[in-house]
Amino acid sequence: MAPHMAEWDEKEVFPVEIMRQAARLGFGGIYIHPEVGGSGLSRLDTTIIFEALSTGCASTTAYMSIHNMCAWMIDTFGNEEQRHQFCPSLCSMEKFASYCLTEPGSGSDAASLLTSAKKSGDCYILNGSKAFISGGGDTDIYVVMCRTGGSGPKGISCVVVEKGTPGLSFGKKERKVGWNSQPTRAVIFEDCMVPVTNRVGAEGQGFNIAMSGLNGGRINIASCSLGAAHAAVLLTLDHITVRKQFGEPLAKNQYLQFKLAEMATRLVAARLMVRNAACSLQEDRNDAVALCSMAKLFATDECFAICNQAIQMHGGYGYLKDYAVQQFMRDIRVHQILEGTNEVMRMIVARSLLHE
Amino acid sequence: MAPHMAEWDEKEVFPVEIMRQAARLGFGGIYIHPEVGGSGLSRLDTTIIFEALSTGCASTTAYMSIHNMCAWMIDTFGNEEQRHQFCPSLCSMEKFASYCLTEPGSGSDAASLLTSAKKSGDCYILNGSKAFISGGGDTDIYVVMCRTGGSGPKGISCVVVEKGTPGLSFGKKERKVGWNSQPTRAVIFEDCMVPVTNRVGAEGQGFNIAMSGLNGGRINIASCSLGAAHAAVLLTLDHITVRKQFGEPLAKNQYLQFKLAEMATRLVAARLMVRNAACSLQEDRNDAVALCSMAKLFATDECFAICNQAIQMHGGYGYLKDYAVQQFMRDIRVHQILEGTNEVMRMIVARSLLHE
Amino acid sequence: MAPHMAEWDEKEVFPVEIMRQAARLGFGGIYIHPEVGGSGLSRLDTTIIFEALSTGCASTTAYMSIHNMCAWMIDTFGNEEQRHQFCPSLCSMEKFASYCLTEPGSGSDAASLLTSAKKSGDCYILNGSKAFISGGGDTDIYVVMCRTGGSGPKGISCVVVEKGTPGLSFGKKERKVGWNSQPTRAVIFEDCMVPVTNRVGAEGQGFNIAMSGLNGGRINIASCSLGAAHAAVLLTLDHITVRKQFGEPLAKNQYLQFKLAEMATRLVAARLMVRNAACSLQEDRNDAVALCSMAKLFATDECFAICNQAIQMHGGYGYLKDYAVQQFMRDIRVHQILEGTNEVMRMIVARSLLHE
Amino acid sequence: MAPHMAEWDEKEVFPVEIMRQAARLGFGGIYIHPEVGGSGLSRLDTTIIFEALSTGCASTTAYMSIHNMCAWMIDTFGNEEQRHQFCPSLCSMEKFASYCLTEPGSGSDAASLLTSAKKSGDCYILNGSKAFISGGGDTDIYVVMCRTGGSGPKGISCVVVEKGTPGLSFGKKERKVGWNSQPTRAVIFEDCMVPVTNRVGAEGQGFNIAMSGLNGGRINIASCSLGAAHAAVLLTLDHITVRKQFGEPLAKNQYLQFKLAEMATRLVAARLMVRNAACSLQEDRNDAVALCSMAKLFATDECFAICNQAIQMHGGYGYLKDYAVQQFMRDIRVHQILEGTNEVMRMIVARSLLHE
Repeated sequence: MAPHMAEWDEKEVFPVEIMRQAARLGFGGIYIHPEVGGSGLSRLDTTIIFEALSTGCASTTAYMSIHNMCAWMIDTFGNEEQRHQFCPSLCSMEKFASYCLTEPGSGSDAASLLTSAKKSGDCYILNGSKAFISGGGDTDIYVVMCRTGGSGPKGISCVVVEKGTPGLSFGKKERKVGWNSQPTRAVIFEDCMVPVTNRVGAEGQGFNIAMSGLNGGRINIASCSLGAAHAAVLLTLDHITVRKQFGEPLAKNQYLQFKLAEMATRLVAARLMVRNAACSLQEDRNDAVALCSMAKLFATDECFAICNQAIQMHGGYGYLKDYAVQQFMRDIRVHQILEGTNEVMRMIVARSLLHE
Repeated sequence: MAPHMAEWDEKEVFPVEIMRQAARLGFGGIYIHPEVGGSGLSRLDTTIIFEALSTGCASTTAYMSIHNMCAWMIDTFGNEEQRHQFCPSLCSMEKFASYCLTEPGSGSDAASLLTSAKKSGDCYILNGSKAFISGGGDTDIYVVMCRTGGSGPKGISCVVVEKGTPGLSFGKKERKVGWNSQPTRAVIFEDCMVPVTNRVGAEGQGFNIAMSGLNGGRINIASCSLGAAHAAVLLTLDHITVRKQFGEPLAKNQYLQFKLAEMATRLVAARLMVRNAACSLQEDRNDAVALCSMAKLFATDECFAICNQAIQMHGGYGYLKDYAVQQFMRDIRVHQILEGTNEVMRMIVARSLLHE
Repeated sequence: MAPHMAEWDEKEVFPVEIMRQAARLGFGGIYIHPEVGGSGLSRLDTTIIFEALSTGCASTTAYMSIHNMCAWMIDTFGNEEQRHQFCPSLCSMEKFASYCLTEPGSGSDAASLLTSAKKSGDCYILNGSKAFISGGGDTDIYVVMCRTGGSGPKGISCVVVEKGTPGLSFGKKERKVGWNSQPTRAVIFEDCMVPVTNRVGAEGQGFNIAMSGLNGGRINIASCSLGAAHAAVLLTLDHITVRKQFGEPLAKNQYLQFKLAEMATRLVAARLMVRNAACSLQEDRNDAVALCSMAKLFATDECFAICNQAIQMHGGYGYLKDYAVQQFMRDIRVHQILEGTNEVMRMIVARSLLHE
Repeated sequence: MAPHMAEWDEKEVFPVEIMRQAARLGFGGIYIHPEVGGSGLSRLDTTIIFEALSTGCASTTAYMSIHNMCAWMIDTFGNEEQRHQFCPSLCSMEKFASYCLTEPGSGSDAASLLTSAKKSGDCYILNGSKAFISGGGDTDIYVVMCRTGGSGPKGISCVVVEKGTPGLSFGKKERKVGWNSQPTRAVIFEDCMVPVTNRVGAEGQGFNIAMSGLNGGRINIASCSLGAAHAAVLLTLDHITVRKQFGEPLAKNQYLQFKLAEMATRLVAARLMVRNAACSLQEDRNDAVALCSMAKLFATDECFAICNQAIQMHGGYGYLKDYAVQQFMRDIRVHQILEGTNEVMRMIVARSLLHE
């Protein structure tokens, strides 16, 4: 993807065909069961794959991580019919998925979401809107958290809405600092009728499903930050070795050497955090939620700092769109905010410390 | 400028008319002598003005600070004829100026520049190219550092080249992370003949002139960071007061309160650094160079951190181009790099400590 | 004081005579009115004096700043009789004062203090105890906040208790990380009878008096951090210039040069914050409380970081008690905690931002 | 050890008997071959043990890590006779060892050491002195790097000097910020005759031996920082849960919760760095030197910051010697300096990046 990432950013291309090629290598459903088309790999494998792909384009890979998360939610919590209906075309990326949790009025406080799903016969009638939806408008399958019951997390269910369903529409395409290879739109439901058979899991289980998905989502998005930071370190290493000032390569400057050493050190620490959390999640250990939150907090913060420092070490070139470091910085900036802001990560970690 | 800053960023508009309006208020030659059209204000006044303007658009103000610096260099080091020839139309912004020091092969090591100016009769013949020139291609007056003598700083002279001079051409417009309301292009000299009377100061004085200009340039660019950070703090204060989560304004969160307090504290410190340096420069004190470097280092680093934290506190909205905080962050990122990178600032400060 | 600071630290000497010598220079009541023995200097003068003295011994100077604060409280809020009774001997440091606000159960939440003062005839009967009292046990005059009324800040009064009063006793001398040239003890009141005429200000005014004192106290303690950091920078500059490794002075290492530049830059910023707050307080401006809090937060944090970095740049020597940098670090560590923790400073600043 | 650590600090006790008890559990020669009395455990086991012991007393454990390193150097590079002569009594801690590399004039530049060892018959005659020697004066076995050949690393050999050897003496006991449960003294050689049979490894191999020892030494000392930080986090968690302000436990403050979350996150990252490096070293991988340096840099820096933050969250109590957090901070401060300063760690990491 590396040769295209600047172009996708500039022209805001959602690279459907390239992602389908990736899917042919098994990256459309990495941790999905093989029986429904997935690769059946572990969480650790998944993070390593996303890290590697992100060195080519963090934005595109980040979308793929969300797509994988949606497929995993259906694979894990869906019934046999749903799994066989939806997963194969998601794993092949014939169809693309979007995760619909956040609303204009509920971000960090996801459990307060208002999108309603009233049962009417064998359908739910959805009303409300979702904000900041990755892929929104360009994707086919919307995994929507909506309120089928009372207030609070227990009143939330998870429903799959397919593109083309009457009453489903989309907001304008958002203009963003980065993540330009994936469209972001509001997703709007106006008396949108969805068959009850599209509900994944039991009524009231939606919030749990959404949160379960996010554990993996967090280490996956963190992996995308790792890949970007890894690429930024290599680009910087290359730049300071080649670029000369004062008659010598920049790399002769002790301060830059030491900064590079700090960047590499922090990258290794971030990578270990992500991989360790992935193993914990794979083994379904008690500390998995806290470790995934720690990994997301640490890796996305540190990797942003690494990419930002990489810009600095590129000098004026780092500010130009001809050089990739700036895009890595722009693309992964949002990883500190989404799938639970890093403030929410601190909250989750603190809770686990104070209550254990 | 505030209502336009997003549009100028998106459409890459160089807002000539608005700047001319600002010039009518005296902002085209703030610290230029009134006898040649300037406002005759102090360095401290200048920083306060640039700080205020930057709350509207940091990128445009930053260009204006460079324009002012060029006018000041001519006003200070030019002869009477040059001063009266160039300054009035610069102060009114009828004409726009660009500062041409950096070359593709010499950034931090400015004294190694290669653009040659060979004397031939009563002309200099310029050959070479300048990189990262703010305003380049769209401006009228190029204040160019070029080599009229041997290697090193003593061989450099300062020459004014007017747009339209044969042999003067421009590179492609650079695509940048921010600073989109001002064009950046390479400036290219191919047997470009410039009258010797366009030399500002003596032969060999060019490097000193360039460095003198930068002392003021540094606190001015730092002031642009101050304005951006000030605006970002206010936007954040507003956002967290209005935006609700968990049934309460975000501002009820102690962590966000404390972060806001840190941002405001660091902004005040940065502002004091800039104003203190401005007074020192005004009084031509011995410590002025070191204090200007400290102010640029401290203010541009801290203000970037403030804007970046402001994005975080806006949550997902901070990543959207509909919200100004992201543009402030993008625009002032380059202030840590140009007019001497912040690494060069550390070098200057260290030198003053070790040699005093 | 510099030649003695290590000895005072090691042997835990409260240097009474040296402080009296300082008082003869006017440092016992710097910002006290001359009519009661003070020097009548401004807040700015005061911070400059404390900064200078702290380069010799931050711990001793810090105690002197508390002593000055107590004298100022009596000078400002006391009646004529009290002013003439207490201030002259405090200004000459014939007598030493202690500020008694914090209790074992109320630190940051000072307004919840429990020490009771029940009126009985023309006396108050005090019961309760105060914690972390600087000078406690070795000083003569205790300026005590105690509860004469109901709960909350309005129920608090300020009473002077003289050493030797029956019912006044002291806890064991605390062993501390630094601040060893001033004793710290609990101050205990058991049916301790104090004449009502010793009450400073009106009943219920005590909390306001205590907080008023702290505004000045905070910039004074911050000044002590400035002096320590200034000394640490100079010691480091000297060390790296003299000490050789790899055949050259340490100062040839670019990384150390740049670190030194950062230390000096942050020191200048901290100093400007303190001096700016001092001017605001002197002029009784509306922003004085917020600026004093910002100055205390910023200066005590940054100066600790500077001293800690100075240790690092001394290598192994920095860890030895024969070298002063480690004592500066140990002594000023507590400045981030007392006279309102730096968390309380953030709270005060945040409040001023959110409510203005 | 936890119940004694404050006393050992205050009275500067070298706890010989307690360490011998630890040796009976196998901690005197953890990664030494069992055939010479060691426990034969892996590097990973070793770091886990030192981390656990350090929660009781970081200073004492740190000495034990140095002792282990010395034993390992003899076990690994000594001949059979030397191994059987020295290792058993070291593993049982009947005898204690000191590592003698640093000299007054050579710290980071260890290869420039001057202590000379001139061969005379079957003895070396040692002259010179070693600085900052842990255990110096109280230990029995000195593993000394000395110059048997020309300048540079190739002229250095490793020689064991036993206490009581004529010509071996010690400087005064250093007074230090922490690490008070282990004596630090200069070790002085004046015509000190040592049998050639005490040379470990070949002539000229000393520097390699010294550096090999330090790879393990670095992750071991980093493990001591981990233990201290882990204890500090637990103490802080306990303190903020119990201590009340504003009518509620401190733990109700979101800012403190989030800070605690950050501390725990960074502790986990530091631990992963150490354990990952230990595995790499165990497997003798190419990246082991860089990973051990990264682990030492990252863990000792982060753990100091954690302990320092723990002091802050204890408020005034954190500054009192009755509370352990301050001792953890003081004890591990030196881990950022010794066994290669963290600046040297950056140098090693940078070199591995630039040359690979």
